[in-house]
Amino acid sequence: MAAEDIGKSSREEYSMKGGNDVYSYANNSSYQRGVIGTAKELITDAIAEKLDFNNIVLSNTFRIADLGCSVGPNTFFAIQNIIEAVQCKGKCQGLDPQLLEFQVFFNDHTSNDFNTLFKSLPPDGQYYAAGVAGSFYCHLFPNSSLHFVHSSYAIHWLSKVPELVVDKTSPAWNKGRIYIVDSEEDVVKAYEAQYAEDMECFLHARAQEVVCGGLIALIFAGRPNGAPHSQTPHTFIFNLLGSCLMDMARKSKVSEEKVDSFNIPTYWMSPQELEAAVHRNGEFRIERMEKLPGVINFRDLSKSQVIASNLRAVLEGLIKAHFGDVILEELFELFRNKVEEQLPLIMSFINTDFFALLKRKVKD
Amino acid sequence: MAAEDIGKSSREEYSMKGGNDVYSYANNSSYQRGVIGTAKELITDAIAEKLDFNNIVLSNTFRIADLGCSVGPNTFFAIQNIIEAVQCKGKCQGLDPQLLEFQVFFNDHTSNDFNTLFKSLPPDGQYYAAGVAGSFYCHLFPNSSLHFVHSSYAIHWLSKVPELVVDKTSPAWNKGRIYIVDSEEDVVKAYEAQYAEDMECFLHARAQEVVCGGLIALIFAGRPNGAPHSQTPHTFIFNLLGSCLMDMARKSKVSEEKVDSFNIPTYWMSPQELEAAVHRNGEFRIERMEKLPGVINFRDLSKSQVIASNLRAVLEGLIKAHFGDVILEELFELFRNKVEEQLPLIMSFINTDFFALLKRKVKD
Repeated sequence: MAAEDIGKSSREEYSMKGGNDVYSYANNSSYQRGVIGTAKELITDAIAEKLDFNNIVLSNTFRIADLGCSVGPNTFFAIQNIIEAVQCKGKCQGLDPQLLEFQVFFNDHTSNDFNTLFKSLPPDGQYYAAGVAGSFYCHLFPNSSLHFVHSSYAIHWLSKVPELVVDKTSPAWNKGRIYIVDSEEDVVKAYEAQYAEDMECFLHARAQEVVCGGLIALIFAGRPNGAPHSQTPHTFIFNLLGSCLMDMARKSKVSEEKVDSFNIPTYWMSPQELEAAVHRNGEFRIERMEKLPGVINFRDLSKSQVIASNLRAVLEGLIKAHFGDVILEELFELFRNKVEEQLPLIMSFINTDFFALLKRKVKD
Repeated sequence: MAAEDIGKSSREEYSMKGGNDVYSYANNSSYQRGVIGTAKELITDAIAEKLDFNNIVLSNTFRIADLGCSVGPNTFFAIQNIIEAVQCKGKCQGLDPQLLEFQVFFNDHTSNDFNTLFKSLPPDGQYYAAGVAGSFYCHLFPNSSLHFVHSSYAIHWLSKVPELVVDKTSPAWNKGRIYIVDSEEDVVKAYEAQYAEDMECFLHARAQEVVCGGLIALIFAGRPNGAPHSQTPHTFIFNLLGSCLMDMARKSKVSEEKVDSFNIPTYWMSPQELEAAVHRNGEFRIERMEKLPGVINFRDLSKSQVIASNLRAVLEGLIKAHFGDVILEELFELFRNKVEEQLPLIMSFINTDFFALLKRKVKD
């Protein structure tokens, strides 16, 4: 292993808002919870069909990692589902369920609120829990030590803002905006390049950590194959927030230079882009790739306040780090108003959440 | 595994003071650091002599747990030493050091400040780190998953205050005191019984978690075989703190009833008591048991302020939970003054820190 490649790195860090208060991620992630809910059956099926116990679990310990877990409760819900499905598959393959033990690694950035995560662990003791701090674009676990990797609504975070988009001398300088607009081809290319580099790191690290025959389930917000970025609701929403920041810059409530140097480090990949990355890496086979049905609680999202609170729980850390916290209230109030105005348009976006199942190739 | 036995439990929780402030454990644990320093060579020797690589490490991952790790930096210092010794032994036994990977589990109560722990992890990436929250008197890890367990200055914490010592109807009711005095035989017996029960749980859990041939290194403050409790400096210091609380009760600054219901859940075991527990458990062999030499920075301890700050970092959480935080400043100022008065006596106590090395028996 390359020593400099383990766990903590010089990459940038952003975490969902910790704690349990009104703006916390724990209380503002019902959409993400809904997505996990719709993926539940897919994961259960994937485990039933694609997990071959006898070849991969050498001891009686089944090790699961949730990458980008945040603070809960979504991660506990997802893990519970995985464990039930694995137990069921184990039984089918003749394993004594009493002997099977689970060790679950909850991973997120070092800045994640692990204290809250540990305090809210389910008390039923179905598994041995551990927290692992560090970027999932680095190695986080020993070789061949994981049987199942889960990552929901996390892989769209890039390891950092593409450098060129905040470089004044670059044609990709994203002046006056905080995210991709399709017309700015150089900006799009800079984001694409960062995505490709990050996904290469992600797959490289996982190829070493996941046992041959082990599975990776990815739930991600992306965009349909061939679709421009503007077709994703997230891109629209980020640009709406960007316009709020520019409004505030015009009123001198925030410096325009600050807005110019702020970009959101996410990328909404298409299934084709993921396929290409998996192909380049060469160590995994894509077993499934499909669009998720609309989330159950989509109706709740029609409330502008819910959208604003959800976005705040996700972005507050990033915004605070760049602009300080004085602008937060005004920014998100402005944003809520714009969401209210644009609600019919926002509601017209098609859901673009995907499920992908990767299986670590068995070596000859 | 018994589900109710994993990780989090209904046991009481006390952690060293988190964060990095003036009263934090991180900044007030130089004594504990000194003890780890004196044990360094013993651990290095233990690994060189008693660790048989070829029989215990089936994959190339060597798993270490530090039980009761607190927030650092002591734990990082101890782990670094263990890893260097294991690498050295591995080399001697013909292992390619490039292939050997380390996974380190940092364990402490759920109330421990894991956020600070993760943020202060050494950046050199020598190992894959994970945090595990829960009482070490419970199962915390899968069966046969650990090769080396380290626990320094932690095993003297009982899982709870012995119930009888705070039971008004019991002859063991420890009225007007917060810790053992030798003349109160029933109190001593109640503490002894709690210790025996806890150590049984500790060894039972570890017997399952540690691979056959794996090692447990315990560094603990105890008392010499056959010595009364009053001969340990810790017992003296706790009773000194108790007398401060009673002084405050007499001045009605704290209710006497509150003092009566407060007892410190620690036990300073003797090597003989540990031997008896290991014998009862039957799964380990004691490879070494010895008194540690005096700590290097013992001279620093002659300052009453250092003793007071150290004790505050250790006990603040417990005291706050029972009495509230308004009494803290006055209590520890009073305590510092009493320490100052008693300094010659305190300095006359003989060091009673021990090192024990247990090896998990290899099954026939």
